[in-house]
Amino acid sequence: MNALTIAIALGGMALIYGFVTSRFVLGADAGNTRMQEIAAAIQEGAQAYLKRQYTTIAIVGVVVAVILFLTLGAISATGFVIGAVLSGTAGFIGMTISVRANVRTASAAQDGLQEGLTLAFRAGAITGLLVAGLALLAIAVFSWYLTGPAGHGWSGEDRSVVNGLTGLAFGASLISIFARLGGGIFTKAADVGADLVGKVEAGIPEDDPRNPAVIADNVGDNVGDCAGMAADLFETYVVTVGATMILTALLLGDVGPQLPSLMALPLLIGGACIVTSIVGTFFVKLGRKANIMGAMYKGFLVSAVLSIPAIWLAISYALGGMASEFQVGAREVHGFDLFHSAMVGLAITGLIIWITEYYTGTSFRPVKSIAKASVTGHGTNVIQGLAISLEATALPTLLIVAGIIVAHQIAGLLGIAYAATAMLALAGMVVALDAYGPVTDNAGGIAEMAGLDDSVRAKTDALDAVGNTTKAVTKGYAIGSAGLAALVLFAAYTTDLREFFPELTVDFSLENPYVIVGLLLGALLPYLFGAMGMTAVGRAAGDVVRDVRAQFKANPGIMTHQTRPDYARTVDLVTKAAIKEMIVPSLLPVLAPIVVYFAITLVAGRENGFAALGALLLGVIVGGLFLALSMTSGGGAWDNAKKYIEDGNFGGKGSEAHKAAVTGDTVGDPYKDTAGPAVNPMIKITNIVALLLLAALASG
Amino acid sequence: MNALTIAIALGGMALIYGFVTSRFVLGADAGNTRMQEIAAAIQEGAQAYLKRQYTTIAIVGVVVAVILFLTLGAISATGFVIGAVLSGTAGFIGMTISVRANVRTASAAQDGLQEGLTLAFRAGAITGLLVAGLALLAIAVFSWYLTGPAGHGWSGEDRSVVNGLTGLAFGASLISIFARLGGGIFTKAADVGADLVGKVEAGIPEDDPRNPAVIADNVGDNVGDCAGMAADLFETYVVTVGATMILTALLLGDVGPQLPSLMALPLLIGGACIVTSIVGTFFVKLGRKANIMGAMYKGFLVSAVLSIPAIWLAISYALGGMASEFQVGAREVHGFDLFHSAMVGLAITGLIIWITEYYTGTSFRPVKSIAKASVTGHGTNVIQGLAISLEATALPTLLIVAGIIVAHQIAGLLGIAYAATAMLALAGMVVALDAYGPVTDNAGGIAEMAGLDDSVRAKTDALDAVGNTTKAVTKGYAIGSAGLAALVLFAAYTTDLREFFPELTVDFSLENPYVIVGLLLGALLPYLFGAMGMTAVGRAAGDVVRDVRAQFKANPGIMTHQTRPDYARTVDLVTKAAIKEMIVPSLLPVLAPIVVYFAITLVAGRENGFAALGALLLGVIVGGLFLALSMTSGGGAWDNAKKYIEDGNFGGKGSEAHKAAVTGDTVGDPYKDTAGPAVNPMIKITNIVALLLLAALASG
Repeated sequence: MNALTIAIALGGMALIYGFVTSRFVLGADAGNTRMQEIAAAIQEGAQAYLKRQYTTIAIVGVVVAVILFLTLGAISATGFVIGAVLSGTAGFIGMTISVRANVRTASAAQDGLQEGLTLAFRAGAITGLLVAGLALLAIAVFSWYLTGPAGHGWSGEDRSVVNGLTGLAFGASLISIFARLGGGIFTKAADVGADLVGKVEAGIPEDDPRNPAVIADNVGDNVGDCAGMAADLFETYVVTVGATMILTALLLGDVGPQLPSLMALPLLIGGACIVTSIVGTFFVKLGRKANIMGAMYKGFLVSAVLSIPAIWLAISYALGGMASEFQVGAREVHGFDLFHSAMVGLAITGLIIWITEYYTGTSFRPVKSIAKASVTGHGTNVIQGLAISLEATALPTLLIVAGIIVAHQIAGLLGIAYAATAMLALAGMVVALDAYGPVTDNAGGIAEMAGLDDSVRAKTDALDAVGNTTKAVTKGYAIGSAGLAALVLFAAYTTDLREFFPELTVDFSLENPYVIVGLLLGALLPYLFGAMGMTAVGRAAGDVVRDVRAQFKANPGIMTHQTRPDYARTVDLVTKAAIKEMIVPSLLPVLAPIVVYFAITLVAGRENGFAALGALLLGVIVGGLFLALSMTSGGGAWDNAKKYIEDGNFGGKGSEAHKAAVTGDTVGDPYKDTAGPAVNPMIKITNIVALLLLAALASG
Repeated sequence: MNALTIAIALGGMALIYGFVTSRFVLGADAGNTRMQEIAAAIQEGAQAYLKRQYTTIAIVGVVVAVILFLTLGAISATGFVIGAVLSGTAGFIGMTISVRANVRTASAAQDGLQEGLTLAFRAGAITGLLVAGLALLAIAVFSWYLTGPAGHGWSGEDRSVVNGLTGLAFGASLISIFARLGGGIFTKAADVGADLVGKVEAGIPEDDPRNPAVIADNVGDNVGDCAGMAADLFETYVVTVGATMILTALLLGDVGPQLPSLMALPLLIGGACIVTSIVGTFFVKLGRKANIMGAMYKGFLVSAVLSIPAIWLAISYALGGMASEFQVGAREVHGFDLFHSAMVGLAITGLIIWITEYYTGTSFRPVKSIAKASVTGHGTNVIQGLAISLEATALPTLLIVAGIIVAHQIAGLLGIAYAATAMLALAGMVVALDAYGPVTDNAGGIAEMAGLDDSVRAKTDALDAVGNTTKAVTKGYAIGSAGLAALVLFAAYTTDLREFFPELTVDFSLENPYVIVGLLLGALLPYLFGAMGMTAVGRAAGDVVRDVRAQFKANPGIMTHQTRPDYARTVDLVTKAAIKEMIVPSLLPVLAPIVVYFAITLVAGRENGFAALGALLLGVIVGGLFLALSMTSGGGAWDNAKKYIEDGNFGGKGSEAHKAAVTGDTVGDPYKDTAGPAVNPMIKITNIVALLLLAALASG
């Protein structure tokens, strides 16, 4: 069998795992009637949101698909549609499982911590493996179709595979930015709004059924942290693996018979790691110390360690032996080189998890320092949180820089691409850890609202606490891989540029002022995007506050438990607000490259236009990497500083320090769940639009 | 007379203005005994701080001077010492005037608003014109000595003038980063600490004499906002004008007899604008509407408009007519071109003031939106403030980008250099507006502590409110000019590199991964630096809180007005903390370029080492520009949102919205006065150290 066929077969295993495991999850006990009622309300709200979100995105998607069809032809447009639909599907399936697993986890937690953990983690693993599996299959099957039945060549000279993969990546990214941002605005507007008016004004606890925004808050966990995250990681996978293939096609145009195997190799690595991820999920078990984070790490570690021989086998099989070599420009690359580059990627993944845990875990200096600063008030809590968020960029950046240097020394640009591919190959396991979070978060809410025994809530709280760190991990991982992927995409841009416009000599040197202009404008994009995201959350949360106040006023029976609040009204309000607010910022990275290219071309000619556009691509990663890292780590640290105080430190729950920590947590919410994570798809879109623009200019 | 002699004469006028005006300020009534007592305590504390700060810096300075002497010779070392001493002097004089003008302004405000304004503004104008005058004279006299008595040539081939100016710039920058950061930590630790324990815990108003930290808070205004700011702007002036001259020397090595005039031209422009700044100061007068900001703008506008013919005259005189031309590489540059480039600089200055006022003034959307968000609590105040701080980077960046494009179209790199020079030529007036702030801030404190009539405090408050915007203006102006100056410094780096190492082919293209590595590491520096600055303020403010609590506890008579607190103890404590905390972050930009060069050279060879170092220089500006703009604008907006609420909006003083706004103000404090403004000298130091490293490597 050739490498591509095997990759498709391994991708299929992810779907089978998802199917079998979902039978297990859905077969579990769904709790009593009250629990099922609450869960149904959450399901309904989540589905209503997703339906409206997808309808809105579909309008944009159809317009973009038509434009692509007219400018670049059927293959690009088809790729775009596949990417968009599957990105949406990944989000939809993840959310569908999540809103069913939540109530079952609450129910299982009545039996014990291990039971709750197993159910929540398996639910997360379904999402994780479906994200990785669908992403892998999307690329593999589309490539197979193009090079098989459709009769196109693998080489970059026949543009079909390159155009198809670029379209696919664009579709995935475009859906992903809408989903990340829309979901992020929804979840944080509901969360912040519910907290402000519930905890602060009305003095009722979190997840109290009297709070009209409580269902919206729980819906938010699913549409933001689950559906949005799944779409985001689907996008990251498709773009990273796709970019590695595109670069291979463009760099190795004349390598001959080895090309099909080399093109399929990233997919085979992905397939191999799907198997190791599946194996890893069975090792997520509590030990004697009942350390939940430890159980998660055990699973991850098993996957990562097994991936080493799996990647070796994949490379060895595809190339016909590790010592076999091929030519990349002036450089001879061996199978060993690709293997070593992939190991760099695995090492980065492991170290990013470790760094993220350091910055967001309750056992280390950063979170403790924020908790300590809360004692002197709201202001010092926020100052220390901002200081930590700035500081938290340092180690990941040094790690990425080291990764770039080592991978490049090993195998040049292809080394960087393989490091990024190996990072993403573990996506199934990483997403599993993340998707576990909203399930346990919801389970706690349902336990609270259904009035289950306090011991149940204690167990779901213990499960949920770990979720803050695992959520931060995925974001650091996604943005870190974006740092590597952006270099690969930039290389694709420059290679394409030379191919399409051999007559132009574009000066990408830092001595060209239009390169500086591009860098500055690129770095501006994440700032502007972040500002819009933060403002949107603030505005929508204000709407929630006003709605809840109005409900309390119009219906005094709510506070005395006599009547139920109108949950659906609040859900509907947040839905409308989130959809409205997500449009403009999402279009920013789509339009910016086009505007910058044409504006600079007008002023300073085509060569400088291309130079500025190229620099924009790197500017957006230089600016975005730091903003995203600081926002996601800082937000996680603020959240856990609150948890650390709630565990009885610095005065515990209800103390002045706790109030200050709640403020910090509120500030961190849109940082870590709205603006920060959406930077990752934003970086990709800017890059992919530039590639598409090049192709359109060349053909137009 | 030649252009250089005229520039020296015009620089002398700034000193004469300073001398005459200081006679006027010091001759004014110094108020009653109580006021003089308080003022004496502030003077004493400020002098004690500055003495200790300068002693510490002197140790670092001597070490650096010796290293420079040994590696680069006497001229570089002499330049360094001159720059360092004069930067310190600028700060010292500014502070000396400020701590004497404060009490006199409080006294004059008893007579009327105009009287208070005149006194405070004149005090600011002394600092402003001395900063500009000393900076101009430092460069002009040193250049005159080197090319006259010492017999060196102007050309870049004789390295003397270039080395001397680089040393001078380094001395100014090194002192400036220490002064900005040390002063910034002092002022905000005292301010935040005093507020937390005074306003929040003890419930006593701001500037209440019972608060042991109240003198430290007032000292902080002088050592941070006055001495630190003056050293910073001295540095900005010296580096910008110096870099223009260095670039001229390096680019026009063989231009012949025109060279001395061309080298002196930036100085002549500076001298001409000193005259227009002096004229402008006399137009700062209240109109019928008693609009204080309007009075300030009148003065600035007069200076700016008069500068247009003044710069025309300067260029025309130096070049012997506007149409006269010279050769820069392949390009022919006319006098007109330089004039138009300078006009770009003036336009940027005016527009930056306008944008800053929009983002930090109480009449516009941004500040009002933060005030409005305060109604729903601390969290939403901070979220909206962060959103505004992110957003506030957009217009200045677009402005700088437009400036780069237009100036470059007019006259290439020299055009950018002249735009930056024209921006800095107005430094006398801009610094005057800024240095006015701490005087009025202190005047209010003294009026409060001395128990003057409430109408006096109302007048000083009105004067002070304008100070928040003018302070933000200077920071935006400094960082904006840094954006242009960094390009000029980078050009000096690449030109020098080719001259020193003609055998190397350094690839500055974005396609070189070591360029990306350099960009990422460069962008990391301001983040790490900001983290250290913020943490330092938090830590030192905590020390203040503990000291004040201890004083209240040990001496219950303080709260009942029976005994005076030990002000000196708190001042001493903050002094020690600030000095200790400023060392490590200040050395970061000095050591980073050296470490990066050697590390990358070790791994990937000398050519990549130089490429990464060059990229680091641009990375630090790409990262730093956004961080600095967001911090300084955001901080100013938070401060004025609090003032806007105190003016009676959204519930006014004492409301819940006000408490939330106080939190925002506290968060903004280290943002706008510690971490943000120190990024400007940080960017310069990194660039200058790179130039020095090049020279050292070439000679070693």
